[in-house]
Amino acid sequence: MSDSRPIGIFDSGVGGLTVFSEVEKALPREEIVYFGDTARVPYGTKSKETITRFSVENVEFLMKHNVKLVLVACNTASSLSLDFLKRCFRVPIIGVIAPGARNAVNSTRNNRIGVVGTNATIISGAYEKAVKSISRKIAVYSQSCPLFVPLVEEGWTKEKVTYEVASVYLKGLKAKGVDTLILGCTHYPLLKDVIKKFMGSEVLLVDSAREVAKEAKAILDANGLLNINPGRKKHKFFVSDEPGPFIRLSERFLKRKMTCVKRAV
Amino acid sequence: MSDSRPIGIFDSGVGGLTVFSEVEKALPREEIVYFGDTARVPYGTKSKETITRFSVENVEFLMKHNVKLVLVACNTASSLSLDFLKRCFRVPIIGVIAPGARNAVNSTRNNRIGVVGTNATIISGAYEKAVKSISRKIAVYSQSCPLFVPLVEEGWTKEKVTYEVASVYLKGLKAKGVDTLILGCTHYPLLKDVIKKFMGSEVLLVDSAREVAKEAKAILDANGLLNINPGRKKHKFFVSDEPGPFIRLSERFLKRKMTCVKRAV
Repeated sequence: MSDSRPIGIFDSGVGGLTVFSEVEKALPREEIVYFGDTARVPYGTKSKETITRFSVENVEFLMKHNVKLVLVACNTASSLSLDFLKRCFRVPIIGVIAPGARNAVNSTRNNRIGVVGTNATIISGAYEKAVKSISRKIAVYSQSCPLFVPLVEEGWTKEKVTYEVASVYLKGLKAKGVDTLILGCTHYPLLKDVIKKFMGSEVLLVDSAREVAKEAKAILDANGLLNINPGRKKHKFFVSDEPGPFIRLSERFLKRKMTCVKRAV
Repeated sequence: MSDSRPIGIFDSGVGGLTVFSEVEKALPREEIVYFGDTARVPYGTKSKETITRFSVENVEFLMKHNVKLVLVACNTASSLSLDFLKRCFRVPIIGVIAPGARNAVNSTRNNRIGVVGTNATIISGAYEKAVKSISRKIAVYSQSCPLFVPLVEEGWTKEKVTYEVASVYLKGLKAKGVDTLILGCTHYPLLKDVIKKFMGSEVLLVDSAREVAKEAKAILDANGLLNINPGRKKHKFFVSDEPGPFIRLSERFLKRKMTCVKRAV
């Protein structure tokens, strides 16, 4: 059995391309439809109700493209809206929280895990709950880092000032002696160098993208939904605002030039 | 003749409260309806088309409250959408660009004016055009400062790191020897101390709020729309997302506790 329908990925903007990239690597025979909600980005400062309303609309858009699986690449939407989305739609839907938490639990040696994310993600406690559901003996320490996304979007990923901002945010987590740090926002992997420099090279930085891709593959496989036909796939990229800034930023996330990004109508 | 209908003000979020505050002072007999588009904030990173679509919806919302005049408190919306809004609606509509530009032209002694604002405002060249339309002999130097809004929203208005960010953004304007600097975003007045420290106390910082309030008064007066009835006015505040964060941030802008902020439906 083979299912040639595409996989759908949505994010509040461009950050979800890190997830796209891992899915493309793990599932080279699958076609992907990506939607970035660039007209309403960011989600991390907004309420559960608003994020959920936006997320429902995003999945509805992907459904029009006949997707067989939806990946919620945005940590904020995964934290606050995944359960609701699963109840609303019949297609399988995966978020990034559970895979990221699993990865961190498998990595920690001292049972002290840190989480950084947007305000909304951190306030939701989603990562903490996900970690505790695997092991109650692990301590989780969380910190919101609202300036990280604007710093990445400004392209200041290695600047001195970025290191100073990171120091302010991360000093509490460092003091707690975490040995594993979940980068709970798709933008944060671009600050890996700065974060590593402050936290120390012995602290393992975990992002969810690779783990999510593995989970997507397992779910497609289990449901007989994999596309087994070889051949070059044409991925589709849609955004809710003008594609220009998305294309420019995407090079930072994908390390390659995007083509063919369309405005969703 | 007296017109008791309210004045409408909209902004992408909370920053427009600086305009609200000046209008309240200049026109104490007028009732004000304020709308902050907190579900879709910020505007400064988005396209003209999207900002204009949002702005039209915002004015439509205010019109339901039977406003007699609309103030576009958001610099980005004023830069990109004011002309379109004026064509769409019959009510008088004022933006913040022309008043801010006039104020700066009246203030400069060496005919060198700087402008700071969001990406969208700076790219639009709106302030430059407004200044040049008054006097062609004035040189205008512009700089976008995308991190200023997130820094203000994080509450880091006096931090060392904020000074460093300001130094990066403003060093070019300082080198040009501007003697007047237009703070072309409603958030920036909260960074006055930091900006002044870097630019030097001899550089005059101009924000549009007071000038806009004067213009509103003049237009109401000229059209016989002033409310001449005394009595306590009950202003109304609406937002498109949960009111909580707006209320918390508003204290920073208004220096008083907001009450009675409702979610627009």
